[in-house]
Amino acid sequence: MISAKPFDFPYDGNLIPAATALIVIDLQEDFLSPTGYFARGGYDPSPLRAILPTVNRLIAACRAAGIRVIHTRQGYRGDLADMTPYEKWRRTRAGLAGTTVLLRSSPGFQIVPEIDVAADDIIVDKTCNSAFTYTDFEHVLRAQGITHLLFSGCTTDVCVHTTLREACDRNFQCLTISDACASGDQLAHEAALHMVTVENGIFGALSDSRSVIDGLARLKARQAR
Amino acid sequence: MISAKPFDFPYDGNLIPAATALIVIDLQEDFLSPTGYFARGGYDPSPLRAILPTVNRLIAACRAAGIRVIHTRQGYRGDLADMTPYEKWRRTRAGLAGTTVLLRSSPGFQIVPEIDVAADDIIVDKTCNSAFTYTDFEHVLRAQGITHLLFSGCTTDVCVHTTLREACDRNFQCLTISDACASGDQLAHEAALHMVTVENGIFGALSDSRSVIDGLARLKARQAR
Amino acid sequence: MISAKPFDFPYDGNLIPAATALIVIDLQEDFLSPTGYFARGGYDPSPLRAILPTVNRLIAACRAAGIRVIHTRQGYRGDLADMTPYEKWRRTRAGLAGTTVLLRSSPGFQIVPEIDVAADDIIVDKTCNSAFTYTDFEHVLRAQGITHLLFSGCTTDVCVHTTLREACDRNFQCLTISDACASGDQLAHEAALHMVTVENGIFGALSDSRSVIDGLARLKARQAR
Amino acid sequence: MISAKPFDFPYDGNLIPAATALIVIDLQEDFLSPTGYFARGGYDPSPLRAILPTVNRLIAACRAAGIRVIHTRQGYRGDLADMTPYEKWRRTRAGLAGTTVLLRSSPGFQIVPEIDVAADDIIVDKTCNSAFTYTDFEHVLRAQGITHLLFSGCTTDVCVHTTLREACDRNFQCLTISDACASGDQLAHEAALHMVTVENGIFGALSDSRSVIDGLARLKARQAR
Repeated sequence: MISAKPFDFPYDGNLIPAATALIVIDLQEDFLSPTGYFARGGYDPSPLRAILPTVNRLIAACRAAGIRVIHTRQGYRGDLADMTPYEKWRRTRAGLAGTTVLLRSSPGFQIVPEIDVAADDIIVDKTCNSAFTYTDFEHVLRAQGITHLLFSGCTTDVCVHTTLREACDRNFQCLTISDACASGDQLAHEAALHMVTVENGIFGALSDSRSVIDGLARLKARQAR
Repeated sequence: MISAKPFDFPYDGNLIPAATALIVIDLQEDFLSPTGYFARGGYDPSPLRAILPTVNRLIAACRAAGIRVIHTRQGYRGDLADMTPYEKWRRTRAGLAGTTVLLRSSPGFQIVPEIDVAADDIIVDKTCNSAFTYTDFEHVLRAQGITHLLFSGCTTDVCVHTTLREACDRNFQCLTISDACASGDQLAHEAALHMVTVENGIFGALSDSRSVIDGLARLKARQAR
Repeated sequence: MISAKPFDFPYDGNLIPAATALIVIDLQEDFLSPTGYFARGGYDPSPLRAILPTVNRLIAACRAAGIRVIHTRQGYRGDLADMTPYEKWRRTRAGLAGTTVLLRSSPGFQIVPEIDVAADDIIVDKTCNSAFTYTDFEHVLRAQGITHLLFSGCTTDVCVHTTLREACDRNFQCLTISDACASGDQLAHEAALHMVTVENGIFGALSDSRSVIDGLARLKARQAR
Repeated sequence: MISAKPFDFPYDGNLIPAATALIVIDLQEDFLSPTGYFARGGYDPSPLRAILPTVNRLIAACRAAGIRVIHTRQGYRGDLADMTPYEKWRRTRAGLAGTTVLLRSSPGFQIVPEIDVAADDIIVDKTCNSAFTYTDFEHVLRAQGITHLLFSGCTTDVCVHTTLREACDRNFQCLTISDACASGDQLAHEAALHMVTVENGIFGALSDSRSVIDGLARLKARQAR
């Protein structure tokens, strides 16, 4: 059981590692590097970089507890087949026409080397903000018997929240880890965390990395007994 | 063309009434009445009631322009077949066990009588926060050739935003009308509007009812010429 | 365990009534009556009527075993919002323009009275041939914890098979009950049953009503011990 | 306009190359080679090989007409994250445990070299029989403005038909090209073609490669005038 608000996670106290995954959203070069999509758009990527040690501590704790780690990566197909005329217009407007920013064929698409990606982690590539839309994310979760999701990554207000909202609508049990998420827009980040808890947890529960790590340690201790 | 930020809507200046719909999210008794789900949950429904005249003005302007109006209603099936054990637990925790709050079989499910619902408006019922998930909403939009969506209703941070995010991921052109949306949580409302515009319009464009009505009037004048 | 080919159902021998549903596809007046959509299209509905007693026996056996019954009904919305120009053209071509055939607002949409529909059966309405597409069918199945599906109804080659194929792709365990399915086209019916078993059960397993009823009786006897 | 039954394609006579795609389903080594999944399963792959020249002629005619070519490939992720316990059991039962058959990481996943794949063709990878389920296929089609689909590939009864059925449910205009599809099971192949035409074209229209090539030539001639 993980201490959280407005209620502990999971709600029924039944945390099963094999049915749980740590979701690490979009910790890619394009979002975190000083020359990537975000930095070019005028956003300071340092809040995103600041969570990397926390995310790694969570990854280590989850692995030790037998919880699967799933990374997502955002980017258009290298052939641009999934890019609409509107998105092309937005790219041009943002000064990105002709660049490889946010393309899967580009080095910027890679997860930053600071993040501990293991050989048996699962990686899901997506074009949309939601990891569920037009991908095999739900397929993988159902195939693995995963029903409980712990959310981390960037940005809190865009891709984390869109994926979280879809996960709730599809009845996954969701916990957002406040200090393992970040955004280039601090107001949006804080508001996104607040929104999780409205209507007594409309988007599940909200916790922090310490509570998650403590909860997993207690779980392990109990299993060892 | 409708004045909006961070760019006017639609981006290419090509506003086609038959390809556009006004989406009116969840203006139901359960959310707006003093005895409904929201009021029981400690939220003041008066900000939700305050937008009703604005939404009606938009409905009238859209009808005059030849833009279809689509209302959504949120609620569980009368037979509860779509309610998970978790949602049952949440209902009990909120003191709603045994009530008909948010059930499609209940009077609270109805759209408030103040809203001008016409015989040829389309109504989409949903269980999820997103109108796209497990419904025929996308089917109806595609069948009607609708590609552009104007968003109004409640709550800005939950059902409007979840539907808006899914609409963007599915490549609909989206405009959120700030004063035609409301929430019981003012911070969440304002932050949700702000979020539309991050990353140069990650969730489309943001406008207000005056700009929409003016834009539709100009469109009508141009068509009359 | 139910005797089936190319392997018994379910494959792991673990038949859990609460996780199983009998799916009864589209046994509606429009398909079965002598004045409905099918009869007007030149198809003889008598093979469809012939399975009704078998389907009722299965419904009774499933209820006795604690297996949920889910009926589907096919039809366009009464407001025609989900009908494309192409479908309108097809209706006109079939001489159905101006009729209420296959509309949810029409008496022909109802399940035939011969079928034993109980108050706690679940009914899913659909426009598509697949019960999964643009409906809450998957939502209901997941909310109820249903993972195993027994297929019956009409027509074997169109709506049963399309729903079956989607169910397999979504990793539900599927059993088609040969004599509880029917079509107005006997060749298509037989070929559809054959197709279930190609590639060693590409669409799950194939059995008949006697084997299902016997298997459920054995299950009940074992539970009683 | 392409001659077809039960009606010519498209139904309204309006064939727009930029809105049309030739879908080439699963012409991969694993299905066509004498040591692949199919051959190991006891199926003769020669009917699949026999269509390759026809598919290439269609590819050439479509390219000349400005119609996009989209290939699909079926296979599990190299990390097996999308393989259920049931699918693992089926693999073992088919003597495929420990092999790389039908894995994306395997040479057998590749499209056979006989098929003319151009640099600007689109390739969609899938785990399911339907190219729509848990993939970006619909995303790509919508992003490209593609509404009309010409179907070829293998197998007629399994992956072609499942994708075709889903395409119809999603209101794409569909034409199946009889002699450009094949199956290892001749009865299933012929029945699958027949099923397209039941109920006056429940799954769209059925034609052959000559009619498609002739129709595209006429279209080109008309455009040149």
